[in-house]
Amino acid sequence: MLYKPSSEKEEVDRWKEVTLVYNSALKEVGTKLEILNDEFQHVHQYNPIEHIKSRLKTPESIVKKLKSKDLEATIENMVEHVNDIAGIRVICSFTSDIYRIAEMISGQNDLTVLAVKDYIENPKPSGYKSYHMLVTVPIFLSNKVVDAKVEIQIRTVAMDFWASLEHKIRYKFEGNAPEHIKTALIQCAKMVSQLDDEMLSLNNEISKL
Amino acid sequence: MLYKPSSEKEEVDRWKEVTLVYNSALKEVGTKLEILNDEFQHVHQYNPIEHIKSRLKTPESIVKKLKSKDLEATIENMVEHVNDIAGIRVICSFTSDIYRIAEMISGQNDLTVLAVKDYIENPKPSGYKSYHMLVTVPIFLSNKVVDAKVEIQIRTVAMDFWASLEHKIRYKFEGNAPEHIKTALIQCAKMVSQLDDEMLSLNNEISKL
Amino acid sequence: MLYKPSSEKEEVDRWKEVTLVYNSALKEVGTKLEILNDEFQHVHQYNPIEHIKSRLKTPESIVKKLKSKDLEATIENMVEHVNDIAGIRVICSFTSDIYRIAEMISGQNDLTVLAVKDYIENPKPSGYKSYHMLVTVPIFLSNKVVDAKVEIQIRTVAMDFWASLEHKIRYKFEGNAPEHIKTALIQCAKMVSQLDDEMLSLNNEISKL
Amino acid sequence: MLYKPSSEKEEVDRWKEVTLVYNSALKEVGTKLEILNDEFQHVHQYNPIEHIKSRLKTPESIVKKLKSKDLEATIENMVEHVNDIAGIRVICSFTSDIYRIAEMISGQNDLTVLAVKDYIENPKPSGYKSYHMLVTVPIFLSNKVVDAKVEIQIRTVAMDFWASLEHKIRYKFEGNAPEHIKTALIQCAKMVSQLDDEMLSLNNEISKL
Repeated sequence: MLYKPSSEKEEVDRWKEVTLVYNSALKEVGTKLEILNDEFQHVHQYNPIEHIKSRLKTPESIVKKLKSKDLEATIENMVEHVNDIAGIRVICSFTSDIYRIAEMISGQNDLTVLAVKDYIENPKPSGYKSYHMLVTVPIFLSNKVVDAKVEIQIRTVAMDFWASLEHKIRYKFEGNAPEHIKTALIQCAKMVSQLDDEMLSLNNEISKL
Repeated sequence: MLYKPSSEKEEVDRWKEVTLVYNSALKEVGTKLEILNDEFQHVHQYNPIEHIKSRLKTPESIVKKLKSKDLEATIENMVEHVNDIAGIRVICSFTSDIYRIAEMISGQNDLTVLAVKDYIENPKPSGYKSYHMLVTVPIFLSNKVVDAKVEIQIRTVAMDFWASLEHKIRYKFEGNAPEHIKTALIQCAKMVSQLDDEMLSLNNEISKL
Repeated sequence: MLYKPSSEKEEVDRWKEVTLVYNSALKEVGTKLEILNDEFQHVHQYNPIEHIKSRLKTPESIVKKLKSKDLEATIENMVEHVNDIAGIRVICSFTSDIYRIAEMISGQNDLTVLAVKDYIENPKPSGYKSYHMLVTVPIFLSNKVVDAKVEIQIRTVAMDFWASLEHKIRYKFEGNAPEHIKTALIQCAKMVSQLDDEMLSLNNEISKL
Repeated sequence: MLYKPSSEKEEVDRWKEVTLVYNSALKEVGTKLEILNDEFQHVHQYNPIEHIKSRLKTPESIVKKLKSKDLEATIENMVEHVNDIAGIRVICSFTSDIYRIAEMISGQNDLTVLAVKDYIENPKPSGYKSYHMLVTVPIFLSNKVVDAKVEIQIRTVAMDFWASLEHKIRYKFEGNAPEHIKTALIQCAKMVSQLDDEMLSLNNEISKL
C-alpha cells in the first residue's frame, strides 16, 4: 500500500471523505431497501420490513476494533479491515421474511455480496441470532465511482430485542459477564426462538386457511 | 345535539376540518413524546421509547365502528363516540418502561387524561396486552383552541409483534377465528409474557450489578 | 405496440406498478443529489443546492397532457410520451450553481441524459427560465432492472418564485391570460434576471477579495 | 441571580439541559407553524409558508454575542441575554403572507410575544428586511414547565436570498466590508424590494380577476 498522508490536515480531510462515502452508502442501501419493500407490498400486499435503523460506527469503536485485531489506527486499515463502519439493521416480523429480504438483496446486480454469515442457522455461543450480509455498493461521486462496504443485519423483532439486551450486558461487563447472567441470556435466546417459531407457524397456518 | 349540515358541501368541509384537527393532534402528541424521550435520555442516559407509529383511522373503519355501536354515520357521532380516530402507538423495550411513559404523559398539565385501560394488568380474553390512555390535547388554530382526543397505546416490542398477528387473524376471520387458532394465539401471548418477564428481570439484575 | 391489457384489473395493477417505478426513481435521484451536495459541501465548503422538491404528476395532469398531444390515455402512451411524470426541482442560489449541478448530474455514469433544454440561455416567450434535464435512472426491482425517466428542473430561488406565480396565472386563465398580465409577468422575469445577475456578480467579487 | 454551579460537571449538565429545552422549543414552534399552515391551506386553499428552516445557535456564536455585549460567558447570561439561541426562519412568497403569519402566531394564546421588530417597515441601514418576533413557548418536561425563548424570522424568498449573501459578506469582512460592496448590496436590496412589490401587485391583481 503506497498511500501516505503527508500531513495531519490531509489525514483529517481523508477521514471526512471516507465518512462522506460511508454515509452515502447508508443512504443508497436505505433507498434500495425502501424500494424493494414498496415492490413487495405492491406484489404481495405485505411489508416484509417492519423498520430499518442505520448507523455509522463511531471513531472510538473503530479504533477499538482495530486494536483488538492488533492493527494500527490508520484510515487504510479501517477501510480494509473494519467491515461494519456503515451498518444497516433490517427488522422484520417473521424468520421467513429474513430469507426473503436476503434473497432480494442478493438479486440486485449493482450490489456485490462479499460475505454472508447465517447466525440463525448457526447461532453464536451467546445465543445471538441474525443474518449478516457484507455487501459493496457503488457510490457515484462527482468525478469517480467508489465501492463502499455496508454490513446489513437482518433479524426478527424478537431477535432484535434480545440483541439489544445482550449488547448492553457485553458493554457493561466488557465481555466478561458473570456465568449466571450468561446462562440467563441463553435461556432468553431460547424463548425468543420458540416465540418466533410459534408465531411463524401460526402465521403460515392462517395463510393457508 | 342541534348541529345540522345544511348541505353536502358543508359536510365535506366539516369532515376536512375534523381531519385537520386530528392530524394536528397526532403531530402535537408526537412532538410531546419526542421531547419527553429526549429529556429521559438526558437525565437517565436511556431511551424508554424504542419507536413510535401514528395513524389516522380510515373513514371505512370509522363507519364500521359506528355501525357496530348502532349509531348513524355522522361527523358528530364520530367525534363523540369514536375515541381512536387519532392513534399513537409507543413501543418500548421493557414492561417497566410502559409505566414510566404513562406517568410522564399523565404529568403533562396541558393534556387531560380521560380514561386509562391497563390491559397488561388485565389482558383481554384473546391474550391482548397493552396500556391504553385516552387523552385530549389542545390544538391552537388561528382563531380558536380545540380539544382533540388521541388514543395512546403503549406496549413492549414483543406485545406489539403479537398484536399485529392477532390483528391479522381478527381481520381475516372477521372475529370468528377457529378455536385451534384462538388457542394457539393465547399460547403465543403466554410466551410473550414470559419472555418480557425474563428479559425485564435480567435487565433489572444487571442494573444492580 | 403489442401490449394489450386483457382486463381492467390488469390495467389497474399495471398502473400501480408504473407508479411504484416512478416513485422509486424519485427516491433514487433524490438520494443521488443529496450525495452530490454532501460531496460538494465537503470539497468546496459550500452547498450548491438550497433545497429540493419532488412530485409525481397526478393522473389528471397526465391525461390532460396526452389529450393535448392527441394521444389516447393508455399506460403505454403515458410511459412513452409523458416525460415529466416523475419530476424533481433543484433550487439553488446562483445561476452558476445551476451549471455546476447539471455537470455533476451528467457525470454520473449510471444515469443517461436523454435531453437537455436550457431555458436560461433561451428563455420561453413567457419569460420562463430554468434548466431542464431528462434522464433515466435504473431501478433495481427484485427480479429485473427498469429504466425510469425523471425530469430534473434546476433553477435559482428567484426563478422559482417567478415560476410559481406564472404557473398560478397559467392555471387560472387556462393559458389565455389578458395581455397586460402577460406583459407584467415578462417585466417581472426581467427583474428576476437582473437580480440574479447582480447577486451573482457581487458573490463572485467577494470570492476574489 | 444566585445560581452558581458548584463544579464543571454540573455546568456541563446544565448546558445539556438548556440545549434540550431550546431544541424542544424548536420542535414545538415548528409543529405549531405546520398546523397553522395546514389550517390556512384548508380554509384558503393556499400555503402561506413556502418552507421553514430551524437552527440552534452554536456555542461559538453564543460566546461571541455575549462578548460583544461585554458579558461573561455563563449559562445564566446566555439564557437571559441571547434571544436567538433557538431560531426559526419562515420563508413565504409574498410580503402580505408575512403579516398573515405574524398575526396567526400572535393569536396563539399559549405563546407569549415578548418583542416584535419590523425590519420590513424599517429596514436596517444595510438594506436588511425581515419581520422578527421574539416569543416564549411553554415546554412540558416530565416534572416542570419551562418557558423557552424562540426568535422567529419571517421573510420572503427574495429577502432570504439577499440575507444569505449579506450574511456571507458580513462574515467574510467581519462587519467591515469595503464601501463599494456595501453600496452594491444596498442596490440589490432595492431590487429585491421592487421585485417583491411587483410580484405582490401582480398576484393581487389576478386574485381580483
